[in-house]
Amino acid sequence: MLDSNTTSFLVDEINLEVPLEGAPVTALEQFQSCRSFTDHLCSSLEAEDFVIQSMTDASPVKWHLAHTTWFFETFVLAAFDEGYTLYDERFPYLFNSYYIQAGERFSRPNRGLLSRPTVKEIRAFRSHVSGRVSELLTRLDDLDADVGRELLTTLSLGINHERQHQELILTDIKHLFSLNPLYPSFSDASIPSSSPVKDLVWNPVEEGVYEVGTSTASFHFDNEGPKHRYFIEPFEIASRVVTNGEFSEFVEDGGYRNPLLWLTEGWAAVENGGWTHPLYWSSDSGTWFEFTLNGRREVDPNAPACHLSYFEADAYARWAGFRLPSEFEWETVAQRIKIEGNFSENLIFHPFDNSPNSSDRVQHLFGNVWEWTRSQYSPYPGYDPPAGALGEYNGKFMCNQFVLRGGSCATSVTHIRDTYRNFFAPSTRFQFAGIRLARDV
Amino acid sequence: MLDSNTTSFLVDEINLEVPLEGAPVTALEQFQSCRSFTDHLCSSLEAEDFVIQSMTDASPVKWHLAHTTWFFETFVLAAFDEGYTLYDERFPYLFNSYYIQAGERFSRPNRGLLSRPTVKEIRAFRSHVSGRVSELLTRLDDLDADVGRELLTTLSLGINHERQHQELILTDIKHLFSLNPLYPSFSDASIPSSSPVKDLVWNPVEEGVYEVGTSTASFHFDNEGPKHRYFIEPFEIASRVVTNGEFSEFVEDGGYRNPLLWLTEGWAAVENGGWTHPLYWSSDSGTWFEFTLNGRREVDPNAPACHLSYFEADAYARWAGFRLPSEFEWETVAQRIKIEGNFSENLIFHPFDNSPNSSDRVQHLFGNVWEWTRSQYSPYPGYDPPAGALGEYNGKFMCNQFVLRGGSCATSVTHIRDTYRNFFAPSTRFQFAGIRLARDV
Amino acid sequence: MLDSNTTSFLVDEINLEVPLEGAPVTALEQFQSCRSFTDHLCSSLEAEDFVIQSMTDASPVKWHLAHTTWFFETFVLAAFDEGYTLYDERFPYLFNSYYIQAGERFSRPNRGLLSRPTVKEIRAFRSHVSGRVSELLTRLDDLDADVGRELLTTLSLGINHERQHQELILTDIKHLFSLNPLYPSFSDASIPSSSPVKDLVWNPVEEGVYEVGTSTASFHFDNEGPKHRYFIEPFEIASRVVTNGEFSEFVEDGGYRNPLLWLTEGWAAVENGGWTHPLYWSSDSGTWFEFTLNGRREVDPNAPACHLSYFEADAYARWAGFRLPSEFEWETVAQRIKIEGNFSENLIFHPFDNSPNSSDRVQHLFGNVWEWTRSQYSPYPGYDPPAGALGEYNGKFMCNQFVLRGGSCATSVTHIRDTYRNFFAPSTRFQFAGIRLARDV
Amino acid sequence: MLDSNTTSFLVDEINLEVPLEGAPVTALEQFQSCRSFTDHLCSSLEAEDFVIQSMTDASPVKWHLAHTTWFFETFVLAAFDEGYTLYDERFPYLFNSYYIQAGERFSRPNRGLLSRPTVKEIRAFRSHVSGRVSELLTRLDDLDADVGRELLTTLSLGINHERQHQELILTDIKHLFSLNPLYPSFSDASIPSSSPVKDLVWNPVEEGVYEVGTSTASFHFDNEGPKHRYFIEPFEIASRVVTNGEFSEFVEDGGYRNPLLWLTEGWAAVENGGWTHPLYWSSDSGTWFEFTLNGRREVDPNAPACHLSYFEADAYARWAGFRLPSEFEWETVAQRIKIEGNFSENLIFHPFDNSPNSSDRVQHLFGNVWEWTRSQYSPYPGYDPPAGALGEYNGKFMCNQFVLRGGSCATSVTHIRDTYRNFFAPSTRFQFAGIRLARDV
Repeated sequence: MLDSNTTSFLVDEINLEVPLEGAPVTALEQFQSCRSFTDHLCSSLEAEDFVIQSMTDASPVKWHLAHTTWFFETFVLAAFDEGYTLYDERFPYLFNSYYIQAGERFSRPNRGLLSRPTVKEIRAFRSHVSGRVSELLTRLDDLDADVGRELLTTLSLGINHERQHQELILTDIKHLFSLNPLYPSFSDASIPSSSPVKDLVWNPVEEGVYEVGTSTASFHFDNEGPKHRYFIEPFEIASRVVTNGEFSEFVEDGGYRNPLLWLTEGWAAVENGGWTHPLYWSSDSGTWFEFTLNGRREVDPNAPACHLSYFEADAYARWAGFRLPSEFEWETVAQRIKIEGNFSENLIFHPFDNSPNSSDRVQHLFGNVWEWTRSQYSPYPGYDPPAGALGEYNGKFMCNQFVLRGGSCATSVTHIRDTYRNFFAPSTRFQFAGIRLARDV
Repeated sequence: MLDSNTTSFLVDEINLEVPLEGAPVTALEQFQSCRSFTDHLCSSLEAEDFVIQSMTDASPVKWHLAHTTWFFETFVLAAFDEGYTLYDERFPYLFNSYYIQAGERFSRPNRGLLSRPTVKEIRAFRSHVSGRVSELLTRLDDLDADVGRELLTTLSLGINHERQHQELILTDIKHLFSLNPLYPSFSDASIPSSSPVKDLVWNPVEEGVYEVGTSTASFHFDNEGPKHRYFIEPFEIASRVVTNGEFSEFVEDGGYRNPLLWLTEGWAAVENGGWTHPLYWSSDSGTWFEFTLNGRREVDPNAPACHLSYFEADAYARWAGFRLPSEFEWETVAQRIKIEGNFSENLIFHPFDNSPNSSDRVQHLFGNVWEWTRSQYSPYPGYDPPAGALGEYNGKFMCNQFVLRGGSCATSVTHIRDTYRNFFAPSTRFQFAGIRLARDV
Repeated sequence: MLDSNTTSFLVDEINLEVPLEGAPVTALEQFQSCRSFTDHLCSSLEAEDFVIQSMTDASPVKWHLAHTTWFFETFVLAAFDEGYTLYDERFPYLFNSYYIQAGERFSRPNRGLLSRPTVKEIRAFRSHVSGRVSELLTRLDDLDADVGRELLTTLSLGINHERQHQELILTDIKHLFSLNPLYPSFSDASIPSSSPVKDLVWNPVEEGVYEVGTSTASFHFDNEGPKHRYFIEPFEIASRVVTNGEFSEFVEDGGYRNPLLWLTEGWAAVENGGWTHPLYWSSDSGTWFEFTLNGRREVDPNAPACHLSYFEADAYARWAGFRLPSEFEWETVAQRIKIEGNFSENLIFHPFDNSPNSSDRVQHLFGNVWEWTRSQYSPYPGYDPPAGALGEYNGKFMCNQFVLRGGSCATSVTHIRDTYRNFFAPSTRFQFAGIRLARDV
Repeated sequence: MLDSNTTSFLVDEINLEVPLEGAPVTALEQFQSCRSFTDHLCSSLEAEDFVIQSMTDASPVKWHLAHTTWFFETFVLAAFDEGYTLYDERFPYLFNSYYIQAGERFSRPNRGLLSRPTVKEIRAFRSHVSGRVSELLTRLDDLDADVGRELLTTLSLGINHERQHQELILTDIKHLFSLNPLYPSFSDASIPSSSPVKDLVWNPVEEGVYEVGTSTASFHFDNEGPKHRYFIEPFEIASRVVTNGEFSEFVEDGGYRNPLLWLTEGWAAVENGGWTHPLYWSSDSGTWFEFTLNGRREVDPNAPACHLSYFEADAYARWAGFRLPSEFEWETVAQRIKIEGNFSENLIFHPFDNSPNSSDRVQHLFGNVWEWTRSQYSPYPGYDPPAGALGEYNGKFMCNQFVLRGGSCATSVTHIRDTYRNFFAPSTRFQFAGIRLARDV
């Protein structure tokens, strides 16, 4: 009989190096903690803020609230809660994202056309589903052990899925607010000043066959497995990420005007998008400002450069005479590093580094900014997505995406692993993504 | 000294053949009545409904609320209320529509990106401006007579401007709701059934030089003047507009599949838009349904066909062996007809005709549906727009637009005249527009 | 019995005020003269020049050669030459332009994708059809009189159709060559310098009911009829068209940077197209150059301004404080003017005016440049296109086109009439079109 | 002193397992052989065929002729032939493709707008440059040894570059002709019928660290190096490529209608492109036909499936229950295989397999069709492109491209290597590309 109070893999899964005050330990607590955190993230928003889709890549906040709820309703309640009837038969059509096997869905680019259901109605839907899932979890002991294990596996996926949407709520609302000439402020937390950084130091990694990816029973996405071997030629990795101050040198050196620094598609993005500086930066009388979730403020030269596309990261690396690491290089380094840093639980939602004595060792591999790798997102040898709709989670995006690693200030600390593979199109700028350099030896 | 209680041209302007209960007679009452009616139109909407721009041609409802208020603030308060300071210095940028001479403006296709200011904030802005304008109107006697007259002229324009936006609120919210699979209902008023129609009868008009347009002192838009002469060859005009039943014969006869019936640009619209029936119609088991502001309902074969583009109106006329009237032919007929019919004050917002004994004479030239004319929108001889920003109201759209006449069920009865020239691009379908046929003799 | 040697309406039709040396007088001579002139226009072209479609609005020269031949094959030979079999069964599909009733056709924007049939093969097709038509014309006497008359009517349409395509060959090859950095020269004829122009003089026209359009038996396009009455308010028309020198003042006064001078759609064209001067102009060290069919040369300030869109003509008129005439105003003036001027038979293909003593009267209404009118292209009262495919010639374009009058240096003198209505979309710049001003009195 | 008659690396480079009759052995002979082969490929074309750019991804044949010549003029003559003056100063602007450091260039999508220079003029340019290069090669002995070596290295690059454009001439003219309803035939060679294929057999490859890529002195593109180590998990590779017969089962099983088989971007390509079968296939009364360079013919079920995009290859593999090999898996197999097969020197330009007894071993890895790999095109560890314009040859395309291996029936046998990395966007269909399956064990 499964004891939900001691489901060790769920504790493993969290891998919480910096324990949160009152960190959840049971499946139920984890579920409720995750759901509450989502609600907490929306607490400063007005009804109007929940509705708008500011670009095709983003979704309205209320869609995120409903979609994560639909996920639990579809894959947990409808599958495991006998006799469950849908809260509203019309919602699956509206709130399925891309799971073809889970039925028809409303066109993604049109998510911003739905004023109804209202935020209030969606909150009632959330509340209903949260209640039913919680109740189901209290009845875990009554289930067959295999079914219970399967339920917890799906629940873990649902929690991690909602953690991803928490991050998207932050990046999407930031994008929306950035387009508003009134510069609305999402949070009034103050962003700590970053301390002056030390010179970048190169940390060598020896050549050899390394194991990468994972095949453990702990929660991980299918794209992280299976564990396999990878030969790595010797290389060196930078002690820290690129700062705003360093990136502004690239800007001022004409980096955005020199096609030789860019991939062909990157240069097309520069020209078509009129890029002359990082997204959210603007110049005022010679001073760089940036839009943050805490309003517009002067760019901090010591803070990590952020909201960069792969194209910008790659061009910067070429300009600096270095390159980006591969995801496997990154992972071999990360295997030796504690997961700690500036995550969404800090409620600051902006990268900073105010550690007084920074080290020559590799630091802050986790948190603050996602780190672009030069690896295009591909399946691992032996990759085997699960059957059914959940098999669509990752595999079908393995084209024209680059892998990012390490999580950001908008990622939950409960959500990151050294094997975690995030991925975005190389032109994507609205994520909290920055640059870790590497070089051949 | 101007007496605002008796400003006769404002009474003239209304031209109210069917007096409303308690129709306003003073400038102040007219202003307040107009503003209240706008608020009344929004009374069933949720905060979320105010935010969305469902297509480039539409605007969010809250933008309409703010823009009409900006108009009064800019052209009345800032011009005539000495010492007036802007309610919010950032609003003119956000809520100017297209008046270049009134300053920079936020990009039109992006109006749906503004979650802030909230509806509540915009209502406060409306209330502030309404209050200040009302107060100013009580001080009319203190003004120089010429200034007072100019103020009242501008006020009339502002009121008529807001009347136009009242209609757009209705057409825009209808378009938005029509895209929502939940089919939200804007109003719960029931739409009267239409009575069976009599055969269409042709009413002859004799050839001759007619006077069209207006140069009177009563309120009219600049594009309605000056009064001038026009030679009209003999023609005949239909006693009534085309009904849904008649239009469905066109549909069933393959009208949307036969390029010979369409203008070249019209056929491109059919193909690119995948048009197979009027906007808002859908077929279910062989029965036609339509989306209305009162929800989805079966198409009433006796009601006027509606939400047709010029292209559809023109193709229908060709199929039927007739043609559309020119705007001058229409106007010579309208000069002899009382302005009465189904207008927005009815609060039904859908065309119908339940008159028991319909006549052989020309009926319902006003209200129900705008009537497309074959006239492309051009300046009259001697057309002379006013100087300054208000001169941009009409003239700059005189290209690739066709003229519609007569007002619709979404138009205020206080807003229509026989010289009134509405205009839209020939592909426009979201207006309440239908078909009056004519023929040569 | 019809005598093709004396078909008087064909002589009427030409209306040749400046008789060409050896002007054709019989139907056969007219046909052969027209066909030869087409061939003559292509005599300087290389095989490669015949193939390319430089934009959707243009066609490859070899398509023009084949399409005009298809027209005669379809509407003359297949209709009147008993037992005629198609030269190549695959050609109608390739060379029908837009006549839906004449069968399926190859997509217009893809005309430049056809390297085959080769120019040589198309010339053989031309030669075959010309021979068969000529032969048929020698047998006119054998035909029933009505059939013969119908044949000659269709032949006239075919000839006038080919005259239109002669003009398009010139405008299309000019556009193609203008895009080539090698600046190929189409002709080595030298363009005469224009004499200094006199001040523009206003010529008054009295108000009244005028007859416009035509219903005669002489050849005219269906859109020119029927003759009908039009009331014209008093106005004045300029003695001459706007010159390059005058237009460059508009350019230098910031005309292309001031949105207040433009129609809304015109301003969009300016912004989207990056317009800063007339098409084919370029600036080099402060001097304006233009690309002509005779190569690149300095802009002649005294020559008529040319290659202007309606939007530019309208903006110029507004800037200058005047307006464009309506097509009916233009026609009432043209009724009193001899048709003479700089036409394609001059083989100069560029507007100029070297008349030493120019007059205060209205001059050069014909030839040099088409004159934009403010009239949007609409059917006349009683307009009745012929049945069948030839009825598609004109009517289906009556939307979003403006009327031009008078012919240009690329028009055949045999092709123009005072009732002739040319029409193009208001953004069209590749035609030889300029500006005649008018004003209200 | 370099002896150009015995430049051994050039002989190495050819790696000619199936020696051609009279295979060239000197640098001069190689150069002339390459140039002549290009001319030979164009011998059946008409002047009109050389001009057209049938899509942005293709170029006019005459552009290929001129661009390859520009390459030799710029990188060989201008660099090594002292005192050389450009044949035409305007040509570098017209015929540079994408080498930013080699100067400004004419916009790629507009290459089809240039009717001039004519084919004849470009042939004169080719002839001039070929003569000058040939003459320079006869003076190799007079050069400093290092300079001579550098010249030969650049010459090799130029020859390989022209070999690539020979293939593009074939793929581009095939695309152009395929759009012409006349179905022109490029070649009258008959395509051999393929023999019935044996069942596909799986060939295992053991796990281990393999060396891939090259660092030899023989000619190779920069993207093939450096040689490095790669760990390969055990896998199996198919004995032969997928046939038309096998692919048609996918088609008939609804492969093009089932989104679950496709990558998300692939499905978008299917929907936007209306894909329902391979490019160049068409169905006639239930029989599949395909357009070939030898005209339209019935699809041969035993021949290799061809003109497939990565998306189609990937979807087919998923449907079949297998996957595509990585480029490193492919290369480890290819290292053991002789380079022989159906290449462009066969002058057949279509894949076929008429070997009577096909083997269970891996066959035809080279020639017939390029084989898509699952590897996205990325730099090797230690990748170091050369300085200057030639460094732009490969590196800047390392984004959103997939690697293909092995050459095709349109590739020169002198041009292929087991380390050769071809790359195209995953939606590309106009290349001769097919499917080799692999599977995990």
